[in-house]
Amino acid sequence: MSLTLYTVGTPNGQKISIALEELKAHYNLEYKVQVLSFAKSEQKEPWFLKINPNGRIPAIVDHSRGDFPVFESGAILLYLAEHYDPDHILLSVDANKKSEAIQWLMWQMGGLGPMQGQSNHFNRYAPEKIPYAINRYRDETFRLYSVMESRLSDGREYLAGSYSIADIACFGWVAAHEWAINTDLAQYPLLNDWLHRLAKRPAVVAGMNVPSENKLIANDFKIALSAEEAEKQAKAARDWILKKD
Amino acid sequence: MSLTLYTVGTPNGQKISIALEELKAHYNLEYKVQVLSFAKSEQKEPWFLKINPNGRIPAIVDHSRGDFPVFESGAILLYLAEHYDPDHILLSVDANKKSEAIQWLMWQMGGLGPMQGQSNHFNRYAPEKIPYAINRYRDETFRLYSVMESRLSDGREYLAGSYSIADIACFGWVAAHEWAINTDLAQYPLLNDWLHRLAKRPAVVAGMNVPSENKLIANDFKIALSAEEAEKQAKAARDWILKKD
Repeated sequence: MSLTLYTVGTPNGQKISIALEELKAHYNLEYKVQVLSFAKSEQKEPWFLKINPNGRIPAIVDHSRGDFPVFESGAILLYLAEHYDPDHILLSVDANKKSEAIQWLMWQMGGLGPMQGQSNHFNRYAPEKIPYAINRYRDETFRLYSVMESRLSDGREYLAGSYSIADIACFGWVAAHEWAINTDLAQYPLLNDWLHRLAKRPAVVAGMNVPSENKLIANDFKIALSAEEAEKQAKAARDWILKKD
Repeated sequence: MSLTLYTVGTPNGQKISIALEELKAHYNLEYKVQVLSFAKSEQKEPWFLKINPNGRIPAIVDHSRGDFPVFESGAILLYLAEHYDPDHILLSVDANKKSEAIQWLMWQMGGLGPMQGQSNHFNRYAPEKIPYAINRYRDETFRLYSVMESRLSDGREYLAGSYSIADIACFGWVAAHEWAINTDLAQYPLLNDWLHRLAKRPAVVAGMNVPSENKLIANDFKIALSAEEAEKQAKAARDWILKKD
């Protein structure tokens, strides 16, 4: 095994499993998955903090490069592109196309991820319903989707030229839109097409099913839970989310 | 002029002016500054959205490479390192050291920036005081500072080996800690030392003073405003911050 991926089935974890599945399909790259239990605070244990001092997933350890550890999903994507993608299927070798992909990767890292994450928090996990915060992050998630919609309006199929780590970084977040904004993507038809375009890639499907089955693609991106079931699932996560770090 | 920087004197803008001042000091790189007026929503004007479709600062246009535009501060830092830093003063050429710097850059992009930014929002700008949200983001900012404090506890002077874009990305945020958390860094002595270490670099001082004088370094990182003056300043920003995008 060249690499170990430490993960959980969340959009940030899925970025890396999708990228690794692309590399596996193209180069037969092998990797091992180790799931962390947030309920048991495994991400805060000393052995894991040596891998990721921030105590979050995903992280990788690269056994073929002296057990080198990499944390932060965006940094892992760039690392995999640099060391394991000689044919440049994840990131163009052309300087401008590469920068464009990195610009949209950074946009995901600094905007779409954290802001949709806050929408998840106030929409699903916070112990009190705070309209100002719910609306603030839901509106910002809508704004970010509209930025993607505009980007795709020139007929392009992917965010930055050809398929890249920029698309991979955004996919799991946009796929989980209903959890954050309680509605479908009807008002973003081009973004919806992009989502379905990516969902046709076998590596995207395989990556979404790491570390366990994920039903979003099979259910056409609907959560397919009753309101009661969704609340039950949110409640199960709430305890460890609200635990002090 | 090789480059134009579109900016405002915020921590994300300061990242780029500090990096450009380092390149200016080392290579005589020249750049032009264009300040955007958020009050006039200039960041939403069509000409600027062609440069940054996300409608935010900072952004650059590289005149010596066909007016190539780059948005997202993290992407600009990587672009400058790739194209304008042949001596690798901002980012090591060693693969592992380079990845370490990118890991901490991503940590800033996805964690320190957005979370301290939310702390600013609920601490200073939101029209209602919401204790849950104020505490959530203040606590997360404290946690992120403690991650930096741990990182520096092995005696290192910089976040990733030698001085790099990782330090540059974090500096403006940590410098403005009082605006977010209402206190000094007494409980983070190593982080405080790191802040003062960076503040000795002439390029850091010069970059902080783009586009206009910034008093944080001269005032030893104290805001040096009365509570009333601080609230007045927050109020002036509140109107455009709360404007719908």
